[in-house]
Amino acid sequence: MQGFYKKFTTLLDNFFWLLYNVRMEKTVSAIGYIENDFTEKFGIPRQSGKADGVISRIHFYPPYQTEDAFKAIDGFSHLWLLFDFSAAKTTEFHATVRPPRLGGNTRVGVFASRSPFRPNGIGLSVVKLLKVEKTEQGISLLVGGADLLSGTPILDVKPYLPHADCIIGAVGGYADGVANKRLSVEFLDGAKEKIPAEKLAGLIDCLAEDPRPSYQDEPERIYGMAFGAQNVKFRVVGDTLTVVAVE
Amino acid sequence: MQGFYKKFTTLLDNFFWLLYNVRMEKTVSAIGYIENDFTEKFGIPRQSGKADGVISRIHFYPPYQTEDAFKAIDGFSHLWLLFDFSAAKTTEFHATVRPPRLGGNTRVGVFASRSPFRPNGIGLSVVKLLKVEKTEQGISLLVGGADLLSGTPILDVKPYLPHADCIIGAVGGYADGVANKRLSVEFLDGAKEKIPAEKLAGLIDCLAEDPRPSYQDEPERIYGMAFGAQNVKFRVVGDTLTVVAVE
Repeated sequence: MQGFYKKFTTLLDNFFWLLYNVRMEKTVSAIGYIENDFTEKFGIPRQSGKADGVISRIHFYPPYQTEDAFKAIDGFSHLWLLFDFSAAKTTEFHATVRPPRLGGNTRVGVFASRSPFRPNGIGLSVVKLLKVEKTEQGISLLVGGADLLSGTPILDVKPYLPHADCIIGAVGGYADGVANKRLSVEFLDGAKEKIPAEKLAGLIDCLAEDPRPSYQDEPERIYGMAFGAQNVKFRVVGDTLTVVAVE
Repeated sequence: MQGFYKKFTTLLDNFFWLLYNVRMEKTVSAIGYIENDFTEKFGIPRQSGKADGVISRIHFYPPYQTEDAFKAIDGFSHLWLLFDFSAAKTTEFHATVRPPRLGGNTRVGVFASRSPFRPNGIGLSVVKLLKVEKTEQGISLLVGGADLLSGTPILDVKPYLPHADCIIGAVGGYADGVANKRLSVEFLDGAKEKIPAEKLAGLIDCLAEDPRPSYQDEPERIYGMAFGAQNVKFRVVGDTLTVVAVE
């Protein structure tokens, strides 16, 4: 009788183990990709909306590029992008991450962060909708403030619904308060003129967000940030970032 | 020479066609699932946050259930859930949808809507974080206001960052203005007492949101909404919803 009982509970255990491990799985694929001046990770603002002046274009693959799929989208001021963290591939699961804004030394849980190194590697960013453009390849969207690397695959575009998505009085944990320090940006003679006029505001926004790793404070160091086809060289002393050259 | 040119341009064409059609694709899998009283689609509020009183529990699969993965999450008042629209399977792409709140007759583009019937079928909802609970199976989260069907697979949990995610002054297109009509909810004798006390506020929130399809106005009709193990029967006359029975 005891043998039977043992068999029965083992069976039951295995049954629940199986049930527990049947997890939903599916394939997702890009509906398009983004194109902008962020050709490298260094210098991309750490959240969307910090550099509204940076303009990105979202291209869509067939059949998503059709005009119908974007009907009434121009009534929305902002959009959500779901995207693949294509530049942050990781095979292992790491339960904690070190947010750059906490100095890079403090660990928080991955689900308490927006880190790209996360299960399923899906990113979420809100962008400003600037223009719905009809091109020969169909619709493309011009958006401001995206914090995505150029070429990032887009998984979805959703309208930003103010009455549901904007939570007045929400509390942002460790991320509150650390987000508002901005640098003042100066240019050495001749550097400013090398930046195309329509890109200047966006670049200044990015620089003001302080691209350096938080734990670095080396006034002598010259950093280089790729921006479009250019390389922007700068150094930071105190609260002032000075662009020393644009190549 | 012309033959060579033709061959060359054809080659180029094919090359770009291939390049254009190499689309990122990957497998995502559930990190957990949600459990609540929404056992059917009918009656679930059409956006998150409309029924904060409805409490859901998010269970996590190994290895995500570890305490480390949620370190510092209790500092956030709200969380984003990315989830699989598991109850809205569709194989074909439909460029337009008919949002229920527009009466179900007006078509808008799928990317101008939060419809579950969309490419990649990933949902996005913000919920209130009520409690981080340690159970024998690891961490589970109690959240308020989720508009997800019970059993929905969760793909990601991210903190809501007020300074990036709450856009003051954002414009919500056709969704503005149609979201605030709420019904007053009444109960016939004896019906209210059948609802467990801790679930009453959540149920009333759901009912106030008017579960009926927008294009229906049949004062005589009795609707039934599954809520947990119960069936809530009601009718709507004008701006008043009356619960006539709870079974």
